[in-house]
Amino acid sequence: MLPSTVGKIPEDAKRVFKGVIFDVYQWEQEMFDGSTATFEAVKRPASVEVIPVIGSKILLSFEEQPSKAATYGFFGGRPEEGEEFVETAKRELLEETGLKAQSVELLKDYIFSGKIEWHLCIFVAHDCEKTTEQKLDGGEKIEIREVNFDDFVKIASTDDFYGPMHFKLELLRMKQDPAKLAEFKSKLFG
Amino acid sequence: MLPSTVGKIPEDAKRVFKGVIFDVYQWEQEMFDGSTATFEAVKRPASVEVIPVIGSKILLSFEEQPSKAATYGFFGGRPEEGEEFVETAKRELLEETGLKAQSVELLKDYIFSGKIEWHLCIFVAHDCEKTTEQKLDGGEKIEIREVNFDDFVKIASTDDFYGPMHFKLELLRMKQDPAKLAEFKSKLFG
Repeated sequence: MLPSTVGKIPEDAKRVFKGVIFDVYQWEQEMFDGSTATFEAVKRPASVEVIPVIGSKILLSFEEQPSKAATYGFFGGRPEEGEEFVETAKRELLEETGLKAQSVELLKDYIFSGKIEWHLCIFVAHDCEKTTEQKLDGGEKIEIREVNFDDFVKIASTDDFYGPMHFKLELLRMKQDPAKLAEFKSKLFG
Repeated sequence: MLPSTVGKIPEDAKRVFKGVIFDVYQWEQEMFDGSTATFEAVKRPASVEVIPVIGSKILLSFEEQPSKAATYGFFGGRPEEGEEFVETAKRELLEETGLKAQSVELLKDYIFSGKIEWHLCIFVAHDCEKTTEQKLDGGEKIEIREVNFDDFVKIASTDDFYGPMHFKLELLRMKQDPAKLAEFKSKLFG
């Protein structure tokens, strides 16, 4: 097995590189035999994902990317410097769909571990209302698609769906456990 | 949604940092509106995992890590400079279990995508025989546990199992598809 970190970079780790997305940290770690080894891990900004809900429908993004076929995914993006994740969720929702929500609630905060410190957060945006038009970046081509809960479960558990693997795993487990799936549904639709 | 790469770093990307594990690459990418943006991605060495098979049993590692409770996982490690993945599998198998296999076969080569170029390979080591003792690094505390196929499926699809999430997803899908699960079993036991 590979030596692993717990997904947490120690506080006294030294940042040895600062990139556009990735920062690299190194630290000395004592091993079982008393020797030390240089450990390395990267930090990357959180991925903040949003599930907008309107009535009994869920909105998904159907997005084209440079050199990649269009796929279903969540709306969302990365936090700006110092931005709270919930604010990122609201901002990205507005930019990518033109919607504002009555309330935005954290559904999941998965932490990717194994040498990468990376939060994958999913928010639910309840009772969304259209307030303005989509305002996309130069690099974005996003279509908004409305699906019901059953189709959402089907789409989001496929290989092609562009979303956190943690969520897919959890969704697959829920599909085998009707009580958990019903609980998840009521979290989305309240 | 976040801008993504296809998991492949372009050939003309520039390596801007070389670490112990992570190398960071940057390149300019043209966006839909003709503007360009600096894209960044990291490369990390492959994770090579091995499933040793003896008769109707599978061996799993039950390993303690610094500051982490013991968990089940595969045997394996990272390739040395220039080493073929299959040679890594054989070397790690010998070091971590003292076993040699009649044949070693690639079962899966998952490619982690989304700004990280990372192969997660799983090999099956068929008809293993004990040839020597475990020879562990200073940082390793590995117990060898023998399980049957059903227990393997149970253990390897839990959250705690230390293995590629891609494999867990696939295993969960197989659990819902008896034909695929039987096919997987016959790949392991021949």
